[in-house]
Amino acid sequence: MVQPVPLAEIWRGPFLESVHLGHAVIVDGTGQIVEAWGDPSVTVLPRSSSKMLQALPLIESGAADAFGLGQEQLALACASHNGAAIHTDRVRAWLDHIGMTDDDFRCGPQEPGDKEARDALICAHDAPCQYHNNCSGKHSGFLTLNKHIGGDPEYVQTDHPIQRAVLDGFEDLTQEASPGFGIDGCSAPNFATSLLGMARAMAFYANAKEGQGVRASAAARLRDAMVAYPELVAGEGRACTELMRAMDGRVALKTGAEAFFIAIIPEKGWGIALKVADGTTRGAECAIAALLVRHGLLDAEHPATRKRMNAVIRNWRGIETGMIRPAEQILPRANG
Amino acid sequence: MVQPVPLAEIWRGPFLESVHLGHAVIVDGTGQIVEAWGDPSVTVLPRSSSKMLQALPLIESGAADAFGLGQEQLALACASHNGAAIHTDRVRAWLDHIGMTDDDFRCGPQEPGDKEARDALICAHDAPCQYHNNCSGKHSGFLTLNKHIGGDPEYVQTDHPIQRAVLDGFEDLTQEASPGFGIDGCSAPNFATSLLGMARAMAFYANAKEGQGVRASAAARLRDAMVAYPELVAGEGRACTELMRAMDGRVALKTGAEAFFIAIIPEKGWGIALKVADGTTRGAECAIAALLVRHGLLDAEHPATRKRMNAVIRNWRGIETGMIRPAEQILPRANG
Repeated sequence: MVQPVPLAEIWRGPFLESVHLGHAVIVDGTGQIVEAWGDPSVTVLPRSSSKMLQALPLIESGAADAFGLGQEQLALACASHNGAAIHTDRVRAWLDHIGMTDDDFRCGPQEPGDKEARDALICAHDAPCQYHNNCSGKHSGFLTLNKHIGGDPEYVQTDHPIQRAVLDGFEDLTQEASPGFGIDGCSAPNFATSLLGMARAMAFYANAKEGQGVRASAAARLRDAMVAYPELVAGEGRACTELMRAMDGRVALKTGAEAFFIAIIPEKGWGIALKVADGTTRGAECAIAALLVRHGLLDAEHPATRKRMNAVIRNWRGIETGMIRPAEQILPRANG
Repeated sequence: MVQPVPLAEIWRGPFLESVHLGHAVIVDGTGQIVEAWGDPSVTVLPRSSSKMLQALPLIESGAADAFGLGQEQLALACASHNGAAIHTDRVRAWLDHIGMTDDDFRCGPQEPGDKEARDALICAHDAPCQYHNNCSGKHSGFLTLNKHIGGDPEYVQTDHPIQRAVLDGFEDLTQEASPGFGIDGCSAPNFATSLLGMARAMAFYANAKEGQGVRASAAARLRDAMVAYPELVAGEGRACTELMRAMDGRVALKTGAEAFFIAIIPEKGWGIALKVADGTTRGAECAIAALLVRHGLLDAEHPATRKRMNAVIRNWRGIETGMIRPAEQILPRANG
């Protein structure tokens, strides 16, 4: 087994204080590896980085069009949002639109990450709702599809037609039989694959064009919705949102829990998948930024980049105490 | 260089989702290694795990006795507290007692980790104070000593007599020249040593008895204050507090940022130091619990243990999705 390799380093003064090891792979449209670090064959749970795959049946079934969903809803279906008003207002309107309520969700209530929304709940002594859950857009997609097919309300059961449809698309695009699943934070099954399989699927999204078949059309629409509405995919201050904006729509990005990250790069026809083995988000964010800089897609000096890669760490008095920076082997190459 | 080894694993369904690598060493009172994993010679910043060392000059100088500090203050001097009322009330009273104010601190303001204290600040639209900082007990000790010696108010400067006195005790007990320092979250210098040096220092605390000299007396008093007031060393729900309580005062524990942990075990005369290389607290908490269980000091089935070692991970609906468990090589041995 190939061991994970250093991807990101935490320095404090002159000392390497912590290090994040992981695996990363870049794949082109033919499924060939462009670059790899660590073990591309490692089995992974892509967590929320698989939301674009979980949203395919929503479009392929005709449900999205039957309910007139637009790009905002498709972006939310792929989102891990932070429960800000821009997210929850749209999710609640979506529920109204399909004639469902918060009680129909199976994602569970989650305190919003957005400080304004969180503080408002705290000071009103209100409990969070399921629509605050970071996955409520994905679940709105599941509910829309379920309404369309008249499915059993327990739509996160692994043998439910929705999850079977998700698995079908997942195995098709990863080009692997999934070895199983884990239950995600939002209670949906999260299917396993290899890191390489996940990068292959993302390369499919990078090369997908509308009109080239049902699956490619669905993938292209989801990808385009993500880059059109980066603030809906995550939220203000978040990595996916800020880095997608910094690349002006050239790249679609999606994080996943336990330090997963994917990138969809249409202009190169590439998919990237990376997993920091210890599951720490700061490591995954630093590493994906470095890979995008390495390939000329992201400006190393853009504030959104500098927040995650070569990012200054400051303490409670604002004093600079250290830095998070990419490991040498994923640094931008000298020739750009 | 010896690589870090697996210490803790995160499982989701049948999949090993994430893994925490690190280094750990157990040392006896003669400085001999009892057990080690990874590289005991790795250079580390012990962060808040060095607070007992940083508090030595407070006692050795006579300042603690001159100001009549009791065990509660000594426990707070070693604490990374969560800013609950039981901590901040005592810190504010301590400031009053020595005739100083919040403005004299140099630790910086920090939002309290305690939910009740945090929510009260949020809903009153109040900013946190420096006394909320998790290190305000340590800094109260620095201020007390500074008052005693009439020192310059910038007591966190590396060349300040307080920090030079800290370094003197640090190098004496680690039995190494420190290779340098980083600036900590609270702006004090945090001196580097080897993991083995840190374990040696903790073994000194394990074997220290009052009346055996100034340094041993100071160490014994700090250790005894920690185990007498575990709720002051961290706070309700926190690992140091709950695990110390679970061991009924047999072991003193102290975490540090970036996944440091130490244990002081008087009945065996041992010190333990461990560092999870990726800096993730959940890994360090699982690993220290496992080492304490391994050596018969902590009950594997105690709720405080099960919260960190073989801990069930549940999602937003309360469904069991996985587990955090120790890596095989630090599991309790078959013979107990």
